Amino acid sequence: MCLFSCVITGGRYAVWAEEGSGSERNCSAIPPYLPPTAVNTTLRLRDLRASMIPLNISAYIIPATDAHLSEYIAPRDARLAWMSGFTGSAGTAVITQNKAVLWTDSRYWIQAERQMDCNWELLRDASIRSITNWLILEIPEGDQVGFDPFLFSVEFSFLGELFPEGFVVIQIYIVRVCLFGCSERTWPMKVDQIRAQISDNPYKPTAVLLSALDETAWLFNLRGNDIPFNPFFYSYTLLSMDEIWLFVHTERITEELKVYLNTTCYHSYCVQLLEYSSVRSYLQSYLQRPNVRVWVGTEYTNQALYELITPEDKLLTSTYSPVLTTKAVKDATEQHILKEAHVRDAVAVMQLLMWLEKKVPEGTENELTAAHFVDQCRRYRTKNSRGPSFETISASGPNAALAHYSPSNETVRKLSVDEMYLVDSGGQYLDGTTDITRTVHWGKPTDFQKEAYTRVLMGNIEISRTIFPAGTRGVNMEMLGRRALWEVGLTYGHGTGHGVGNYFGVHEWPVGFQSNNIPFQEGMFTSIEPGYYKENDFGIRIEDIAVTVPATTKYGNNYLTFETVSLVPYDRKLINTSLLSPEQLHWLNKYYETIQSVVGHELERQGLKEEYDWMMKHTAPFLTAGASAVISSVTLLVTVLPSVLLHNLL
Amino acid sequence: MCLFSCVITGGRYAVWAEEGSGSERNCSAIPPYLPPTAVNTTLRLRDLRASMIPLNISAYIIPATDAHLSEYIAPRDARLAWMSGFTGSAGTAVITQNKAVLWTDSRYWIQAERQMDCNWELLRDASIRSITNWLILEIPEGDQVGFDPFLFSVEFSFLGELFPEGFVVIQIYIVRVCLFGCSERTWPMKVDQIRAQISDNPYKPTAVLLSALDETAWLFNLRGNDIPFNPFFYSYTLLSMDEIWLFVHTERITEELKVYLNTTCYHSYCVQLLEYSSVRSYLQSYLQRPNVRVWVGTEYTNQALYELITPEDKLLTSTYSPVLTTKAVKDATEQHILKEAHVRDAVAVMQLLMWLEKKVPEGTENELTAAHFVDQCRRYRTKNSRGPSFETISASGPNAALAHYSPSNETVRKLSVDEMYLVDSGGQYLDGTTDITRTVHWGKPTDFQKEAYTRVLMGNIEISRTIFPAGTRGVNMEMLGRRALWEVGLTYGHGTGHGVGNYFGVHEWPVGFQSNNIPFQEGMFTSIEPGYYKENDFGIRIEDIAVTVPATTKYGNNYLTFETVSLVPYDRKLINTSLLSPEQLHWLNKYYETIQSVVGHELERQGLKEEYDWMMKHTAPFLTAGASAVISSVTLLVTVLPSVLLHNLL
Repeated sequence: MCLFSCVITGGRYAVWAEEGSGSERNCSAIPPYLPPTAVNTTLRLRDLRASMIPLNISAYIIPATDAHLSEYIAPRDARLAWMSGFTGSAGTAVITQNKAVLWTDSRYWIQAERQMDCNWELLRDASIRSITNWLILEIPEGDQVGFDPFLFSVEFSFLGELFPEGFVVIQIYIVRVCLFGCSERTWPMKVDQIRAQISDNPYKPTAVLLSALDETAWLFNLRGNDIPFNPFFYSYTLLSMDEIWLFVHTERITEELKVYLNTTCYHSYCVQLLEYSSVRSYLQSYLQRPNVRVWVGTEYTNQALYELITPEDKLLTSTYSPVLTTKAVKDATEQHILKEAHVRDAVAVMQLLMWLEKKVPEGTENELTAAHFVDQCRRYRTKNSRGPSFETISASGPNAALAHYSPSNETVRKLSVDEMYLVDSGGQYLDGTTDITRTVHWGKPTDFQKEAYTRVLMGNIEISRTIFPAGTRGVNMEMLGRRALWEVGLTYGHGTGHGVGNYFGVHEWPVGFQSNNIPFQEGMFTSIEPGYYKENDFGIRIEDIAVTVPATTKYGNNYLTFETVSLVPYDRKLINTSLLSPEQLHWLNKYYETIQSVVGHELERQGLKEEYDWMMKHTAPFLTAGASAVISSVTLLVTVLPSVLLHNLL
Repeated sequence: MCLFSCVITGGRYAVWAEEGSGSERNCSAIPPYLPPTAVNTTLRLRDLRASMIPLNISAYIIPATDAHLSEYIAPRDARLAWMSGFTGSAGTAVITQNKAVLWTDSRYWIQAERQMDCNWELLRDASIRSITNWLILEIPEGDQVGFDPFLFSVEFSFLGELFPEGFVVIQIYIVRVCLFGCSERTWPMKVDQIRAQISDNPYKPTAVLLSALDETAWLFNLRGNDIPFNPFFYSYTLLSMDEIWLFVHTERITEELKVYLNTTCYHSYCVQLLEYSSVRSYLQSYLQRPNVRVWVGTEYTNQALYELITPEDKLLTSTYSPVLTTKAVKDATEQHILKEAHVRDAVAVMQLLMWLEKKVPEGTENELTAAHFVDQCRRYRTKNSRGPSFETISASGPNAALAHYSPSNETVRKLSVDEMYLVDSGGQYLDGTTDITRTVHWGKPTDFQKEAYTRVLMGNIEISRTIFPAGTRGVNMEMLGRRALWEVGLTYGHGTGHGVGNYFGVHEWPVGFQSNNIPFQEGMFTSIEPGYYKENDFGIRIEDIAVTVPATTKYGNNYLTFETVSLVPYDRKLINTSLLSPEQLHWLNKYYETIQSVVGHELERQGLKEEYDWMMKHTAPFLTAGASAVISSVTLLVTVLPSVLLHNLL
């Protein structure tokens, strides 16, 4: 049924002449060649440079984030995209009177070459060091560099030392807060949990300052919609042992919410509502009280608030606030509902894959119609849906070599049985956030495509099945996702996974496999997503969400492993089982058994017979190593051990 | 021949009644029980506490290191051991008027319980945070804590903020410098290499300050003998673009050395000799020059020198100095001679193992005679020897459960066919430093001992055979050494490896698998040493040195792998080959082939026939997976595919 309601007509999207020199800018050609995707930034740069002169600024830095150091930002916060044309989620630009430079990482190099015009230079080392080195070389000593301290984390604070003067341009946006009770823990229970950590801390902080948007959202069980795909609202919280101050656009707080938050009283479980813009002055006044010490997580506290906390003995820092580390471990209810959301989500993804299997050979579909189809399946057919959790990545052939490509009218490719196709998508549901990537081929893949796909899958399985002591860091296991690729000299240029949770941003840090992520404990959810990208040819990524669960071991206690909660079969046409170890094959068959029973039950419940048959066909067990060993050793046996065999047989 | 010259009589060592309650202190017994290994520290603590009163010090901190933050220190620097009785290489003590507390990590817990008397409390979380938390709780606000800033790295500098007052007790020791040209690079060439890095650095430092002893030793191709097992001399170096200042006990510099160092001139390749004790005042005077900026590596620069470098714009920090990162990559000559040293060293270890195989069943040997035997083999029979590179760890049965146990007259155990035996030893040679651990059983090991040994070996092999992109960090691959143990709920409590080099300390940082080690590049040498320890029962460690070498891969470039340069067979009685993967078995057989050809050649050259035969027997190839698969599948074939077989056979 979804089949009909979800189809959109593909006719209105132009199929654009794709790869080759035409898709990226060529600034050394005469005249310079610009693809249709490039944005003309000449006037914008002229205006910015003009405004820098009276301020006596030699360079101006524009990061890709907002005042909460969010990874995904509201369109009105997209300063970097507006100024440069580049819309990737990570990057930093610096503009001087005669240069405009953008730094971004390898995921986005090709995209930047397609979106920027020749006013811009692309630098491919996105480290802070590379940017500061460039500034030191370019900017005469004594000159001023402008940047907005609300947009830089504390980690960047040395910029302020190098260039003592900055300037601030801040805009505040409309907020709409909505209420949703998504957890068995009420907000006063969560306040108690955080206060217990404040009082147990030997450095004796008196309050915690919450700056990241998901910290306040989690603490009060509130959500908003200020940022596309992310249910957040602009806010800060200052939580002490006996008071709670919530900084929001107060006109957006309904009367009902005021009752929920106890805003009319002043004891320790009453929330005092303060204007969002008063956070700086209020924090300052709190710091003037005697014997106070404010605890901040440096990764998500902006420089503008951090620098207020003086003298130093009023400051206590940790990498993450106690809210982020507490939130990272899901309780039993949160785990249960998040797994349920993934079962429903799997149905939507299977509907997409089944539909494509039928439609692609007819030549009627393209990247945009596929993205639209899966978005519609989630939005209109799946319980508790609040739309996609990020812009669907629907990428065919060479477009998939851009790890984070999203199709547009200018770049859209027709889907064909001659190309691989990668779809990375997810849903926001009131009970949980999902994120899954599958890569498929509807025709005849090359041997290299099969090998690359199988080695990416081996990486996914090796992480998923590994057993490790509770408290092991993801970064110390991440290479298991790469090892099968490394063996043949292949790798990928992005991270291997990120946390995910109950209706928050799709990247829910600090859980994951990055070096700054916290150690794994039972009840954390992370994506596992190795990949491989061949420029101008194809891209592969296999992404699942998994939860850390106790592992039973022969001798030890307190060991964990992963349980995969994304339940969609892989493309068996792309799997070369002879590369898999017996343990990997065993894991794969067990995973397919789980899909059959768990998603099978859901499909039956929904009465989706065609999907059920499709799922059963795609999760048929693979021959195990034992069985295939028998077949391959027949010839050998005949040669080597005929008398033994005859003795046994006759 | 070594057999005779190396034997020592075992009679003079008492065999001590070992495990059980008798070997560790019991401070809750009445009266408290102290083992004979415990040191009476009552008088020492009384004297220290008395001296703290006039200085107005509420607590005094004693670390285990020296002013160069060396891991191994001279006996006269062993403040911690003298005060507490505890002789482990890592630990921190704090003494107040009514408490004496020692922090150390899990390697040393049992040792500490054996060596400390009941004046001391043992705390088992050795993190800096644990120590400072304890201090914050114990020391009233406003009180002073004493510590010697020469003994603390910059990482500890926040102590100075918490407790603004410290006090300094510094003693200077005698130095004897000796010259050895161990590298194809002359010292002026090395000075050029470091100066190139100074001038390439965008932060424009004008000089590098070298504080770790191996930095100065490497730069000038000099060695000393101020610290047992470590060929170092007390020194600092300040190297600018046009001057070189070497701070040493100048009376120990011979006339010949003065010529070698060009000490009579003042151009940029002349070394200006200054008194060791003048480093502080000289550094201060250098800093008064205009436009200078001193580059220091924070991990090995002591607080006393670091705090001199003010204002902040005169300071440039990196984790390690450019000398340590340059030294980490061995050139072709250094690689060649270090591998050669390992071939000769393997002969000494094989002689020990062969001798023990014969002597242990006779019941005449103990841990001390075994340690003495291998030390003598190295010292008197091996070319270029400069003695052992650390005190030999020779540990039988439960003693081996102490990862860093060294035998003494009080604890020595007789060697027996009923116990496992662990020997971790190494040699200093003019061309290189070695470090190797083998664990053996001369009788019938239990199934659990075989499983644990095999899984430790699997860890060693998995790291050794892995292929990874140049620039991968050891900490990101370290779990390969633990994974086979984790699978059954076992692990070990120490690191997995450390750098080693051409006649320096046996732990040559910053190469290795720790989180603060630098990424692997071609030409780095590291130990690979997983283990497993069962308290009061046995200990296993398998340690080899390996060099990073280019790996040939099917598709990629710039990939590395390890080549093991320690060439001594493992105990095949302890290997359960059915646990090994086909890839692991293949690696093992290839390794044994290398031993046969490389060490075989050396043994033939030395005319050591008996050792040659022993080596060939212990390196016989294992049956490969293919061969065993054929045998194990016979029964299955008969059951499953008789018609196919009959068709083929008949």
